[in-house]
Parts: sequence; C-alpha cells; structure tokens
Amino acid sequence: MKTIEFYFDFGSPTAFIAHKQLQKLAAKYQANLVYEPMLLGAVHKATNNTPPGAVAAKGRYMVLQDLPRFVQRYGIEFNFNPNFPINTLKLMRGCYAAKELSCFEKYVDIIYDGMWIQKLHLGKDEVLLDTLNNAGLNAEKMLELVQTDSVKTALKENTDKAVSKGAFGAPTMYLGKEMYFGQDRLDFVEEALQE
Amino acid sequence: MKTIEFYFDFGSPTAFIAHKQLQKLAAKYQANLVYEPMLLGAVHKATNNTPPGAVAAKGRYMVLQDLPRFVQRYGIEFNFNPNFPINTLKLMRGCYAAKELSCFEKYVDIIYDGMWIQKLHLGKDEVLLDTLNNAGLNAEKMLELVQTDSVKTALKENTDKAVSKGAFGAPTMYLGKEMYFGQDRLDFVEEALQE
Repeated sequence: MKTIEFYFDFGSPTAFIAHKQLQKLAAKYQANLVYEPMLLGAVHKATNNTPPGAVAAKGRYMVLQDLPRFVQRYGIEFNFNPNFPINTLKLMRGCYAAKELSCFEKYVDIIYDGMWIQKLHLGKDEVLLDTLNNAGLNAEKMLELVQTDSVKTALKENTDKAVSKGAFGAPTMYLGKEMYFGQDRLDFVEEALQE
Repeated sequence: MKTIEFYFDFGSPTAFIAHKQLQKLAAKYQANLVYEPMLLGAVHKATNNTPPGAVAAKGRYMVLQDLPRFVQRYGIEFNFNPNFPINTLKLMRGCYAAKELSCFEKYVDIIYDGMWIQKLHLGKDEVLLDTLNNAGLNAEKMLELVQTDSVKTALKENTDKAVSKGAFGAPTMYLGKEMYFGQDRLDFVEEALQE
C-alpha cells in the first residue's frame, strides 16, 4: 500500500482542489492518504516565497481561467471564496485540536467545504463556532484546545517539517522521496500510484 | 485552422519545453503556431513578478524533479544550461533582426537548441557569433541590426503587448481569448485544439 503525504492549508484553493481529487485517487489505487497540516504563510515566509495573488495578473488568470479548468477536469464542486485570503492560523491549529478530540477527518471536511464550497468567512470566530456546532463537533472545546501550547507547537513543528522536506507552497505531496507541488501535478501522482 | 500564439523568451527552460511540444501539437492538429518574442525580465518587472528560481526551494524542485518529469513525458531532448540565467536581451532582439533577414524560424531553432540542448553560453558575443555563423546565418549583419531602433522598438512593443494581454511569465499561450501559462498547461491547449 502506497502512502501519499498531503501538506495543506485550508486557505489555499489549489490545496482544496487537490484534497478532493486525492481522495478519489487514494480510493482508486487503495493508497494511504495522510493529511499533514501546515501554515502556508509560515512556509512562504521561511522560503522567501509569496502567494500567487501577490502578482495581480497571476491572481486574475488563476481565478478566472486556470482554476475553473481544473475544477471542470476533475469534476468537483468549487466556489471561490470572496473573503479570500482568510487568516488560517486558528483553523490550522484546529486540525491538532481535532486530532485530540478524534474528529480530524470530519473537521477537515467541514472546514474545507465551508471554505471552498459554502464560501463561509471562517476567519470570524462566530462563523467558525456555528459551523463546528452545526456539524455536531464540540466547538467550544476545540477553540479552547487551539489556545494550548501543545496544539500550537504541533502545527509549528509540522510546518517546519514541510519546509525541511522542501515544500515552498501548498499543496505539496510526497510519495517516498518524490515531491509534487500543486493541484496540477496530480497526474504525476497518479502515475506514481500506478507503478 | 486554429492559431496558437506562443509568447516566449529563450532564457526560460519551461518555454523551451513548450516550444518543442507545441511544434508536435501544431503538426498533429494542423494548427498555426505563431512565435511571439517577449523579454521575460521586462514582463516580470511590469507585473511585479519574480522568476521561480528567486525562491531557492522552488528552483531546486523545478530543476531536479519537476522539469525532468515533463521532459520524460514529452520525450524531448533537454539539458539544463549551467550558465542559467543568461541575459537574453540581445537574443530576443535578434528575433526581429532575423525577421528582417527572413531567417526567423531557423534562428529560433538554433538559439533554442544552443541554449537548452547544447548548453551554450549565448550571453557571450563570441559564442553567439560562432553559433550563428556555424549555422550559415549572417551573424555580423544580425548583430548590426540588433542595435537598430526599429528592432529594439519591435521587441519592446511585443513585450508590452504580452503584458496587456495578461501575461506575467513565460511561456504564455493564447488560443483566441483563452490564455494558458506554462509548459504544464499544454494538455489544456491540446484539448482546445481538439474542440
């Protein structure tokens, strides 16, 4: 059984597209898909990188032409969030709170769909609380855990790990020593799964 | 007959890969492939963009992992030029000198192969002169034309045109109003040619 390590941040629309498509690939090839949270802003800072939207022409091309092509190709539901970019520090720390509460997978699905299908402003505490509570998760407990040192440290350490493995943006996937950057490299990921 | 506008700079390895692959696609679908010279450095400056290699981790990933995957997929000959990055101002102006001398296609092939197959340091005048002369082109006349205002203006105007059409890097392709950025979008270009 092959393992795909998937380094993601909820704030990245391309990571969302990869999240949806990787689930299909993992099922098709019976691969192990491991979600690895990282804080994209910290990855950019550590590698002296900038988000695509920092170049206005690139941002326009991505949103208006490039992302819709992949959304259509992969056949996924996707709506660009008008609140983009959203500060995802609390949301990403929430991944480790969710792990402690044994609801990591559900949390990832809820936050990702809220961000890139329902277009919620999940940077706002009241929206986040409602979203988690409506999904049956213990929102208050999660926001409490998000403030703890162990959760903060876990995200920081995983982000550092991503950078040490060569990541400079999101999404970044690994199969063994092979690294793949971007929702546009999933065909190479699929080829590696077929081998 | 469909037309692909191909905005390129000899200095970009991804544009070289696209150049080789687009020739195959144009032949396969009987499309019209139009080479549009632009100065990549000026495009970056105008759009506040930076080359991928400005982020060290991205540069390493591109050279060591990502480009070799596309080279293998497309089945093209490619050798990363150890002199990269080479100042391409004279080489790109040379495109318009070559147009005046009616040897544009030959010039593009010679310079591109010299840069990304033979790994020549074409930023050096003596290497450029030898390369052109060995190919049977009038090197002295070309270097003379490169100094003229009409040639300088032609490259500047085409670079401005690229930026006005939304380009922010190389290679950039257009089919009608559809824009495609990167050697990694040629599958979408092929789909557009099939329609």
